[in-house]
Amino acid sequence: METAEFVAQYSQLSPNVEALKISQNRILEKDFLNQNQIKTTEYKVINNFDDLKNGLEIFKKAILKTATMGYDGKGQFVIDNIESAKKIYENVKNHRLILEKFCRFESEASVIVARSKNGEIKTYEPLTNVHKNGILDRSFYPAKLSLPQKIKTQKIATKIVEKLNLIGIMAVEFFIIDNKILVNELAPRPHNSGHFSMDASITSQFEQLIRAITGMALGDTKFHSQGQMINLIGNDVNDIEKYKNNARTKIHLYGKGEAKEGRKMGHVNILK
Amino acid sequence: METAEFVAQYSQLSPNVEALKISQNRILEKDFLNQNQIKTTEYKVINNFDDLKNGLEIFKKAILKTATMGYDGKGQFVIDNIESAKKIYENVKNHRLILEKFCRFESEASVIVARSKNGEIKTYEPLTNVHKNGILDRSFYPAKLSLPQKIKTQKIATKIVEKLNLIGIMAVEFFIIDNKILVNELAPRPHNSGHFSMDASITSQFEQLIRAITGMALGDTKFHSQGQMINLIGNDVNDIEKYKNNARTKIHLYGKGEAKEGRKMGHVNILK
Repeated sequence: METAEFVAQYSQLSPNVEALKISQNRILEKDFLNQNQIKTTEYKVINNFDDLKNGLEIFKKAILKTATMGYDGKGQFVIDNIESAKKIYENVKNHRLILEKFCRFESEASVIVARSKNGEIKTYEPLTNVHKNGILDRSFYPAKLSLPQKIKTQKIATKIVEKLNLIGIMAVEFFIIDNKILVNELAPRPHNSGHFSMDASITSQFEQLIRAITGMALGDTKFHSQGQMINLIGNDVNDIEKYKNNARTKIHLYGKGEAKEGRKMGHVNILK
Repeated sequence: METAEFVAQYSQLSPNVEALKISQNRILEKDFLNQNQIKTTEYKVINNFDDLKNGLEIFKKAILKTATMGYDGKGQFVIDNIESAKKIYENVKNHRLILEKFCRFESEASVIVARSKNGEIKTYEPLTNVHKNGILDRSFYPAKLSLPQKIKTQKIATKIVEKLNLIGIMAVEFFIIDNKILVNELAPRPHNSGHFSMDASITSQFEQLIRAITGMALGDTKFHSQGQMINLIGNDVNDIEKYKNNARTKIHLYGKGEAKEGRKMGHVNILK
């Protein structure tokens, strides 16, 4: 963050420093959302082991997360008893920590939203996300949501970028729990769950980012095709021949070297 | 052509040498088409001034063209009297020449067609092309053609790539005259009139070329949006601000330096 603040003294930084700070720290992020009446899972800042103990008593089952630097399930520990809590705490106690109530959600969804230099805001329709081992496995459109739910996710995403004065693009991740819509996470950048837009929307999320920061009109976010984005994780990348035989499948490889376990090597967009 | 023949001795060349030869020479091209019962404008190979004089008597008004190296109206001369014919002939008589009957066509259209390594063939629907000063000005979709005409242009394009054994992509340009469909020209490569596919089709013509020569399934050629491609010629490129304010307009600049008259500096795709 020090680098961002330094750069921002000399040049307009998009997204702005405040938006970066908030979205890079789970504690600030959840505080920001709740201060703006946007629902999240229940959470508790953990400053010492007593905090963790008390939190676990209330939540019964919870996820201990480092406040910063976590992604793809890294820095996250599911806890449901005091013994394992102790062990895990010893390993991570040098980090800023947050405890989130463990939720059995019906589904996950995300909305990509852009806000331009001129204040114009446009959202894509939500996609449903399916994770495996903490890593996004696939996103499909249309999302498994009712129309009012779809509208609500887009309204929440709009409110967030307004409140953050964001210039750029943001992915807002949601949990759907008992028909409630909770915000899980914010990512102020083109996002894995937005890659479907590259081949199925009038405007890809990457083009949208450029339009936003250069002050062009934001592009039409309409999806012209239904379908899904499937991540190629680790060895999945060795098995792409099958996708080459489909007229409506688009293969995207990232040119990474070794196909390590859990490493995102590329993705395919499969249009229906 | 010597280079192509040389390379083809050592490596598979796509498009093949024969297809290149034919499509780079107006005489071979017209001969090839007519030998395959594909209609073109009337034409006559010009070997001396008498040929030109005789041709002019038959056609009344005609276009004298160099057999090779012409594009964007270069190497083309409209002739309707013997005096100007004499002058023009003196300037170009060192070239191989062809005389084509001058036609008042109702419209021009083109079809992009791909044929893959595996023999699979797919055509895009035709677009109507509008030229200004011999240079493509804009192409729009859907084309100003009846459904039977659309089907016929696609059938002709398919026949041509089959006969040529082409691997790759080809633009087939048509004149529509008195409800007849004549082939004007072949271009065995991604073509200016196919640029609309970059933003309005499931598969762009550039992706299609890659799919064709790598043996993937050809991509779906469906246009998901109607609209038009407008070329930015010469100083047009200084006037692109208006396009930036449209959510369904995509600007493509070629990064060329000076905006010379008649020089293609870029294009915009405007989706309806």
